[in-house]
Order: sequence, then structure tokens, then C-alpha cells
Amino acid sequence: MEEKTLNLKHLPGGVTAAKGFRAGAAAAAVKRKDRLDVAVIYSTVPAAAAGIFTLNKVKAAPLLLSMKHLAGGRARAVVANSGNANACNGTQGWRDALAMAAETAEALGISEEHVLVASTGVIGKQMPLERVLPGIRSAAGGLSGDGGALAARAIMTTDTYPKEVAVRLELGGREVTVGGMAKGSGMVHPNLATMLAFVTTDAAITPQCLKQALEYAGVRSFNMITVDGDTSTNDMAVIMANGRAGNPEISGEGPDFTRFREALTVVCTKLAVDIARDGEGATRLLEVEVRNAATREDARFAARTVAGSNLVKAAIFGRDANWGRILCAAGYSGANFTPDKVDIFLGGEQVARNGGALAFSEERAGEILGRDRVKITIDFKEGNCGATAWGCDLSYDYVRINADYRT
Amino acid sequence: MEEKTLNLKHLPGGVTAAKGFRAGAAAAAVKRKDRLDVAVIYSTVPAAAAGIFTLNKVKAAPLLLSMKHLAGGRARAVVANSGNANACNGTQGWRDALAMAAETAEALGISEEHVLVASTGVIGKQMPLERVLPGIRSAAGGLSGDGGALAARAIMTTDTYPKEVAVRLELGGREVTVGGMAKGSGMVHPNLATMLAFVTTDAAITPQCLKQALEYAGVRSFNMITVDGDTSTNDMAVIMANGRAGNPEISGEGPDFTRFREALTVVCTKLAVDIARDGEGATRLLEVEVRNAATREDARFAARTVAGSNLVKAAIFGRDANWGRILCAAGYSGANFTPDKVDIFLGGEQVARNGGALAFSEERAGEILGRDRVKITIDFKEGNCGATAWGCDLSYDYVRINADYRT
Repeated sequence: MEEKTLNLKHLPGGVTAAKGFRAGAAAAAVKRKDRLDVAVIYSTVPAAAAGIFTLNKVKAAPLLLSMKHLAGGRARAVVANSGNANACNGTQGWRDALAMAAETAEALGISEEHVLVASTGVIGKQMPLERVLPGIRSAAGGLSGDGGALAARAIMTTDTYPKEVAVRLELGGREVTVGGMAKGSGMVHPNLATMLAFVTTDAAITPQCLKQALEYAGVRSFNMITVDGDTSTNDMAVIMANGRAGNPEISGEGPDFTRFREALTVVCTKLAVDIARDGEGATRLLEVEVRNAATREDARFAARTVAGSNLVKAAIFGRDANWGRILCAAGYSGANFTPDKVDIFLGGEQVARNGGALAFSEERAGEILGRDRVKITIDFKEGNCGATAWGCDLSYDYVRINADYRT
Repeated sequence: MEEKTLNLKHLPGGVTAAKGFRAGAAAAAVKRKDRLDVAVIYSTVPAAAAGIFTLNKVKAAPLLLSMKHLAGGRARAVVANSGNANACNGTQGWRDALAMAAETAEALGISEEHVLVASTGVIGKQMPLERVLPGIRSAAGGLSGDGGALAARAIMTTDTYPKEVAVRLELGGREVTVGGMAKGSGMVHPNLATMLAFVTTDAAITPQCLKQALEYAGVRSFNMITVDGDTSTNDMAVIMANGRAGNPEISGEGPDFTRFREALTVVCTKLAVDIARDGEGATRLLEVEVRNAATREDARFAARTVAGSNLVKAAIFGRDANWGRILCAAGYSGANFTPDKVDIFLGGEQVARNGGALAFSEERAGEILGRDRVKITIDFKEGNCGATAWGCDLSYDYVRINADYRT
């Protein structure tokens, strides 16, 4: 469904754009001093909630706890920190995640089962609880209806800018708002990444429908971005829906469900594309669209693999129209297609036809590859399924940032 | 089987170390002037032959032709060029590969079905046949019994040094020699890479046994290396066995077959490790051993994924003992294991126990990570299967080399 059909209005406010949501942040010196690193998001009324989590076999303690708390389909708060992932910390990690939930619950006067915990940062270091818990108190004490921007800043690690979005649409005769925030920016790869995303909405919707909508949106957004092929131990995207918009509760398939799901997909896609654009060391956003594949999976595999190829990414960084690397990456993606039928375009410029070279202007291709957003289109001419993936170029700065992340 | 048990002797000579093999090279200006870029390897008598090829859906024309020619299990010559991959060139690419085989056959007075063709270099550019065919004539005209070194040089692209190996062992009362050469060095990933490997042996062995031995060796060597996660359109490893050693022909399982297979594995592993060590921009060889996995596949997946993780590779480049990234990469490898049981070692230094941090000397770890060869050991404590993978660090130079490869 097109954004136009939804008649979406974009607005500021991020996770506090929807009715009944408050957010706050604090500088707890988790890793560095004088930097916001603890965020709390709070719904003033009970909310339906759902989440999607990393497929990494190694899941950080806060994820395991949040998955447990989401089993009932309800939540009222999210507490998140940057600077320490609380991953690979054994049973102490689990106890620390519990302590973070308990502290948040106590500060807000809610049940600790209704608190979701998220962490991002260094793996394998104990959480400095003696600083984190006071930080949670402070963030919870400063909750406000326009705290979204502060919270978005507090979850950043190597992100260069905070990522927020909010949209409004009509649903069942009421104005419904969906807003969110996210952080990247290395280790971002299907499925999920060290990527945290928090979405809030005042829509009334059952936990089951909410989960279904989030999974639909996630497959098309967070799962279609890649920064470096590494899938983190800490990735999660969660949503809370508190019903304050007063729309008739969405409890099954139908026009309202579809419209909500599509609006959520717009929100998640905006956050996902921002994560890709702000990938570590990235100088350009890479958008790869695969058209006319036989199946949606073929399109997704190929688009993600091309967007994730180090060789393609390095070529984009160097403004080198090396389309052979694009076809090559599609070739090892596992997607089914006929190499001799493939057309490839850079921006509006066709560079390959039927799997073979086409005379094209290197100058024009270089100009296209120099844009902030580089679009690669691959036409399989096999069927009518498509998919889009987003990534970024591979630059010297990626190496610099990741050669010495811990210190 | 250990190399010691085989009582292997290493010797010089590469692909011309075994009896009855000649090699030659020429500078044909395929891409650059005054650089060896065409190689011919020739067996003075008919030989059994086998090959393994890229799994990329997009296979270059020379591979398709070589696969066809190997259907009969026989070959007498290999012609290879660097500077142009002859991939994604449509029907013209196929005609050009055929022309290379025909020219080689005519120069050597053999059937063109007995010529294997290999190409490496830029994708999507027509082969400059007007220069390649005279180059083949010239290389075939200069064949010699110590031409292995020249041939190894002629197949290099961004390799910084030629890769050769030869070993001798006793087999059935005779001295048998197995020698080989290879080139890397970007786009190197399981399964295979833009990696070409050519092995020659004077062993007498049936084509079926030869194929079986090559597949066994390939799985443990070429398929266990990774440079950047890209799987090329042109990867191939082929072997010719001409029987000149006079050993009783190996025609089935048995001690002779096992000894031959293990010697071949030593040869292929040496070439594979050299490819990893000389990965584009690499400053260090990375060796990842997974121990005590439940299955061999678990061990292989995990070892390869850790060796291929951009985050691990960048940490090694920066001498950062970020063991969390190692566990994380194992976690998304698809291997089955229990995160809470894993031990991790850098060189001889244990840095994690039971999936959690261990106090270790950062200074000593930094010293270990500064060595030319960095060994990571991961103990799953699940079973008794193991595997080793090789890769390299991710440096600024990888980006530099690949940002502008075509020009």
C-alpha cells in the first residue's frame, strides 16, 4: 500500500508523539561521562505489546528477560541503556537485567513484568549497576510528553544522529499516531542487528494483531538492512499500543488492521533506512531493489546479499560502476534466477542487459554513484515479486571505528 | 592424518614438480602491459583429471567449458589468464573460452576437449582475444620442466606473492609428487572464491578416485577460507594426475588412496592458507579453530563465520581483544552450541570461560593479536568434532584496493 493511500501525516515527537506516552533520559556514565545513556519510555495506561528479537544463538540477558515479559502481550515501560550490551555476562547478566526492570517498575509504580529491558554497547563487560540504577531513577523522574528526542539520543552508540519518526492516520474515525526511535549502526544485518527500535502507538489493537503487524513490518524494514553482515546478540524491536486514540479495537484482519500495519511499516522503514544511512563509516545510503523475481524470497535474498557485499560496498565508496560485482553477489545469494536475463540499472542508467555489458557513460555512472543515496535496480525478468534492501558503502572509517571499539 | 605419519617431503617446483608436467607463461597485455598474464600447464602424457567449481549461480564461461571437458575425467592441459574473468559476457564469452581452448590444443597438438580453461580478473568486459591467443601460443612455445614459478606468477591479480607448493611421498613403493599453485585474493569465501588452484601429480589414480580425493581436500582447505564473504563467478580448483610415478593405480578406498588424499589435503591447505594470508589488504593471517562441536558441520559453520566476521576482522586489525564479537559471530553462524559453555582462547591466552568474561592481560592479548598469525580457539564442549578456518584482518587497504579495482 502506498503512503499516499494511507493519507499519512508526518509529525515530530518520536516515541512521545502518540497520546499517553512519556519519555526521559539520564547521563549515568555507563561507559563515558556526561553523555545521555539511559532512556525510559512509559505508557500512562496499560498497553498491548509485542517484540521481535535477534536470531543470534547468543542472546543478551535483557532480550531473554523482555521475551519473557512479553509472553503475556502486555507492557507499560521500556528501559534502555547504551554503553554496555549486558551480553555474555552469565547469570550475573540475568540478575542485572532483572535489577534494571525492578528499578524501573519501582520508580514508575508498575509491575516489573510490564517492563521491557534493552541494552547496547560492549559485549562481555559487567553492567555498572551502581551507576545504571540511579540513572534509571533519574530518567523516570524526568519523564515528559516531549521527552522522545532525549530518549532517542540516549540509546545512540556510534550513531552520528538520533533516529526518530512519527506519523498520524485516521483509523475507525479517530486520529491514530504511530511513533518510534531507533539506533544502529554497526553489526546491522538481517535478521536484525545491534539495532534497537522502540515504537509507540495510541491505537487500540489486540496483542495478537500487534505482533502480527510488527512481524510484517519487520520483515520489510529491519530485516532488509545490512551494515556489515554481523548479526548482534542484542537486536530487538518492540512496540507498545495503549489504545488512547479511542479507535474501535483492531482484533483481526480487515481494512483497519491493514491500514495500521502499513502505517507501522512506514515507521519501521523510515527507522531502518536511517540506520543503514548512518552505518558505521558510511558516506552513502545504498538502496537495492530487485524486480520481477519468481518469488518474494528470491527478491529478498538477492537484494540483501547485494546490499551486503563488501565488494559492492567498496565499489560504491570508490564510485566505481563495477556492475559485475552486483550480478556476482546476486549469484551467490541463493536466489533463483537466470543470469542471462538480468538487467541492471544504477540510478536511471542501465549498465547491463541480459547479463552482459552495455555501453554506458562512465562519467554519468560516477555522478550517480557520488549521490548521497545510490539506487541499484536489478530486474530478474522471471516473475512479478520484488523487494528492496538498504545498506551503505564500505569506507576507511568503518575499519577505523571497528578496529578499536572497546577502548 | 598428521603430516608426519605421511612422511612428506616438501620440495620446490609447484605444478612442474611432478614427473611429466611442463608449464609456461607469457605477457599478453590482457589488462596491463609487461606483466605475465597467461599460463599454460601441460602433461606430456594423458592424465586423469577432476575439478571443483564455484557454487555461484553466475558461472563464468571458462568454468562452464571446463566442467564440460571434465565430464570424461581426462585432461592434458590448463590454460589460464589473469586480468579478465570472461564472466557476464554472454554468448561471446562462451565463444572466447572455446577459442582459448582451441588455440591451446593446436599449440600443443592435443584434443581441445582435453584443455581446461580458467580466467580471473574484471567481470563484464570482453576478452581481448587478439592479445590472449598470441599469448597462449607464446606460453605454449616456452613450456619447460621448471616453468611452475612463472605460471604461478602469471595467474596473480591483487596477490602480493605467487603461491606454490609441492610434496613428495611414497605410494605403492614409488615416489609420488603432488604440486600446485593458486591465486587469491579478494572475493575469497566459502565455497570457493576468486581463487584459482591448479594441482598436478604423477600418481596413477582413476578419475573417480581423483575427484573424490579433491572434494575431500577442498572441503577442508579452499572451502574453509574467507577474505571478504564474496563468492566469485570464477572459482575453480582442478587436478591432473598423469600416472608417471608408476605406482599401482589407485582405483578405490584403501591405504594408498588415504595417503594420497591426505597428501593432497596438505597441498590444498597450504595453498588455501596462503590465499587467506595474502587477502586483499591483509596484515595478519587469522586462524580459527572450533573444538568439541557436536557435529563437523557445526564446527565448520562456526569457524568460517568467525573468520569471516567484519567486526572480528576489524578488531584483529586493531589488536582489540574483543572476544564478545567472536562469540557473537559463532552465535549467528547457524551452528548449534550452548553459549554458556563456550571457552575462548587468543593464542595460548584464555579470554572467556563458560561464555563469560575472564580476567586476562590486555597487554598480553594485544601482543598475541599483533602476531603475523593470530590463532583463535573456540571450545564448544559439546562433542568431539573440530574444524579450522582461515581468514585475515580487515584493513584500510582492503577498502582502498576494492574502492577502485577496475581502473
